Amino acid sequence: MKKIPHRLYLTEEQMPKQWYNLRADMKEQPAPMINPATMQPAKEEDLYPVFCQALAHQEMDAQTRFVDIPQEIQEMYKIYRPSPLIRAFNLEKALGTPAKIYYKFEGNNTSGSHKLNSAIAQAYYAKEQGITSLTTETGAGQWGTALSEACAYFGLDLTVYMVKVSYQQKPYRKAVMQTFGANVIASPSDTTNVGRQILQNDPNTGGSLGCAISEAVEKAVSTPNTRYVLGSVLNQVLLHQSIIGLEAKAAMDLLEEYPDIVIGCAGGGSNLGGLIAPYMRDKLTGKADPRIIAVEPASCPSFTRGKYAYDFCDTGKVTPMAKMYTLGSGFIPSANHAGGLRYHGMSPILSKLYHDGYMEAVSVEQTKVFEAATYFAKHETILPAPESAHAIRAAMDEAIKCKETGEEKTILFGLTGTGYFDMAAYTAFIEGNMKDYIPTDADLQRGFDGLPKIPGIQE
Amino acid sequence: MKKIPHRLYLTEEQMPKQWYNLRADMKEQPAPMINPATMQPAKEEDLYPVFCQALAHQEMDAQTRFVDIPQEIQEMYKIYRPSPLIRAFNLEKALGTPAKIYYKFEGNNTSGSHKLNSAIAQAYYAKEQGITSLTTETGAGQWGTALSEACAYFGLDLTVYMVKVSYQQKPYRKAVMQTFGANVIASPSDTTNVGRQILQNDPNTGGSLGCAISEAVEKAVSTPNTRYVLGSVLNQVLLHQSIIGLEAKAAMDLLEEYPDIVIGCAGGGSNLGGLIAPYMRDKLTGKADPRIIAVEPASCPSFTRGKYAYDFCDTGKVTPMAKMYTLGSGFIPSANHAGGLRYHGMSPILSKLYHDGYMEAVSVEQTKVFEAATYFAKHETILPAPESAHAIRAAMDEAIKCKETGEEKTILFGLTGTGYFDMAAYTAFIEGNMKDYIPTDADLQRGFDGLPKIPGIQE
Repeated sequence: MKKIPHRLYLTEEQMPKQWYNLRADMKEQPAPMINPATMQPAKEEDLYPVFCQALAHQEMDAQTRFVDIPQEIQEMYKIYRPSPLIRAFNLEKALGTPAKIYYKFEGNNTSGSHKLNSAIAQAYYAKEQGITSLTTETGAGQWGTALSEACAYFGLDLTVYMVKVSYQQKPYRKAVMQTFGANVIASPSDTTNVGRQILQNDPNTGGSLGCAISEAVEKAVSTPNTRYVLGSVLNQVLLHQSIIGLEAKAAMDLLEEYPDIVIGCAGGGSNLGGLIAPYMRDKLTGKADPRIIAVEPASCPSFTRGKYAYDFCDTGKVTPMAKMYTLGSGFIPSANHAGGLRYHGMSPILSKLYHDGYMEAVSVEQTKVFEAATYFAKHETILPAPESAHAIRAAMDEAIKCKETGEEKTILFGLTGTGYFDMAAYTAFIEGNMKDYIPTDADLQRGFDGLPKIPGIQE
Repeated sequence: MKKIPHRLYLTEEQMPKQWYNLRADMKEQPAPMINPATMQPAKEEDLYPVFCQALAHQEMDAQTRFVDIPQEIQEMYKIYRPSPLIRAFNLEKALGTPAKIYYKFEGNNTSGSHKLNSAIAQAYYAKEQGITSLTTETGAGQWGTALSEACAYFGLDLTVYMVKVSYQQKPYRKAVMQTFGANVIASPSDTTNVGRQILQNDPNTGGSLGCAISEAVEKAVSTPNTRYVLGSVLNQVLLHQSIIGLEAKAAMDLLEEYPDIVIGCAGGGSNLGGLIAPYMRDKLTGKADPRIIAVEPASCPSFTRGKYAYDFCDTGKVTPMAKMYTLGSGFIPSANHAGGLRYHGMSPILSKLYHDGYMEAVSVEQTKVFEAATYFAKHETILPAPESAHAIRAAMDEAIKCKETGEEKTILFGLTGTGYFDMAAYTAFIEGNMKDYIPTDADLQRGFDGLPKIPGIQE
């Protein structure tokens, strides 16, 4: 057994030089996207007006197992990566568990999360194609911040449609994006047809992620040399985020450790899919059989209570339809504080793997999540993002089970980011004002009722 | 020449096991503190009611060159340290300078700054002596946050007197401290005599750091098993913060690099004294002669326009008097956004070294500082704290000079922390609403007029 440090950083030489594409090892592929205009499977070219070609190709490519990370992306990764693999010695001691707990911490960059890993890749490929400007939407703001950093680095213009209520409630998130040079617009806005229409109907609306996506897509397709980018759900995003799991596995290999359980929080799947990638590969290829656990909020339980069905990726219904675990694109998640997990659907790749029995899912209530977050902060000194704290909750629960059974399991979880911009949520918890929200079956049924009909595929 | 990585992290084995005490190599010592009750040099025992004994000893000990870092402190350091030494390849490229720029980044912990290095030490020694509770004050909140983390880790109660105007304007900073279990009280408060008196005179006052210090000291000396702690200025703080410079030097040694110029921002001196410690040692012992530059705000220019004189460390005049560069304890700095640099005095050790010609000092205006901060963020992706950006400004200025002269100088600067809680300042800069404040000679004279009279020493 090697001496285990608190924090292990790979050297630059040890950092992965390729991303890993999970689809190459899946026995059954995720169902193809459906183009709503034709009701036929989408082709790579169908995506070109929205995504740059390299990304459209990555979105559709199920064959290439390892994708070389371009040198320029590697260079920018080196500015903030590798992220540390941390042994939670203090948390273990406080819990009195025989379990060994490791976590991969992605919060040590200005975006405060793992989102930067894909933002850099998406900005780079756009620039390579001669694209000069990108559009995107942001809710809580981590994705918008990450993309602002990437666009500043590569010299691209960026327009971020920020859900109006967030724009007003989180002026500091907006200010971070502006510091990096992004043009941040409260959505709905008068800069798009869809925005103007929504404002005409309801001038006082606070906006929604669905509306912001629609505005960002419209802006991209109607502006020369401009493309739209998205921070989760997509296959390309899981590919880029595989850097998390590859680094984690390389570090654990150095320590001669292998996890019995791998745990990640699940919103659209960007972090979870990235973290588990090399371990899922071991499962798919029969090399090992770790338990893999997705953790989602009880208020937005797409894995645990959703349907595996074709649905739109956005509430505005402008995107292709994907087969995934979904609560329906019309489902309105309650005001859970983990904004990054308030998404109706789930990565089609992860949905397929879950459907086929390769992973488990649990849902947790947010008061239990914040209880874990504050406990973790006091013992490990890191203030976690509410999203990340879902994984902490599940990891602590597994470690407590080990205490009861005496099993010395090795647990790895993803700590996706920091909670500096989520202190209103922490305050609500500390002051006892946090509530739990669990949708009723009737709430869910309303979402399912809005699932699209696709002739011959989904009636 | 070694291959230079973007980020270099020492291994746990390479981390320093001892702090370095600059005084042991100073040919002339800083003047002794004066006890205002006796007007005589303060003795170690005089400090026992306020500081725990180990820290009082460190405060007075000018002999011990290297102080072993207790094992328990090393263990907590390992949770968030080592901090990276970063080569600013992108900044160099953007500036087109032949200079090599390195920075030591202390912002990757929840306190967001280097303050945690001393908070841990101070909490540890208090606990070792059987102290159960600490008090302190905080303005901008980084010190209070750091101490909250340390007290949560060591199981000590903590009461933080937070300047009322900050308490009201920065509820999220308060929330972070509360998350770590600290009792945060808006100062002035009704929990102390001095607080009640101030409130009686002016019920609507927003408070001041001086008042908060007075409350924290009163609370400490009037509560059983309680001591007061302070995050800057003190000799003990410089000792603990030497970890910054020792790590930086160890990393640069591995790269076979030696700085021609070492640059740090200067408020009370905690970061500057820590960063420069091993390089100042080389100067004091004649081993090398790097330039050492302190950077302070033009609005609070203690080095560049202050007097080298005995003064109180607080505006409430309850502390011992120290000989230092000071603007007078009654000097009210203007509303500069770098809250951590709005201090009237300067570490007595650094003051003596500056007085004896071992270092230089420059002052910079805050609009120039934020110009550097946003430029740095766009190229290096880290959003710096306004305090840290003072060092960035000076480093960029030196690198630009190198461009003009063609000199390939090696520059090392301290990036003390992140600016996530300073976005109001960034917004003011981006929107063109930031002003520069430079005190007039008359402003300064009012501060000097309040310097204490000490019979036979300072008339």
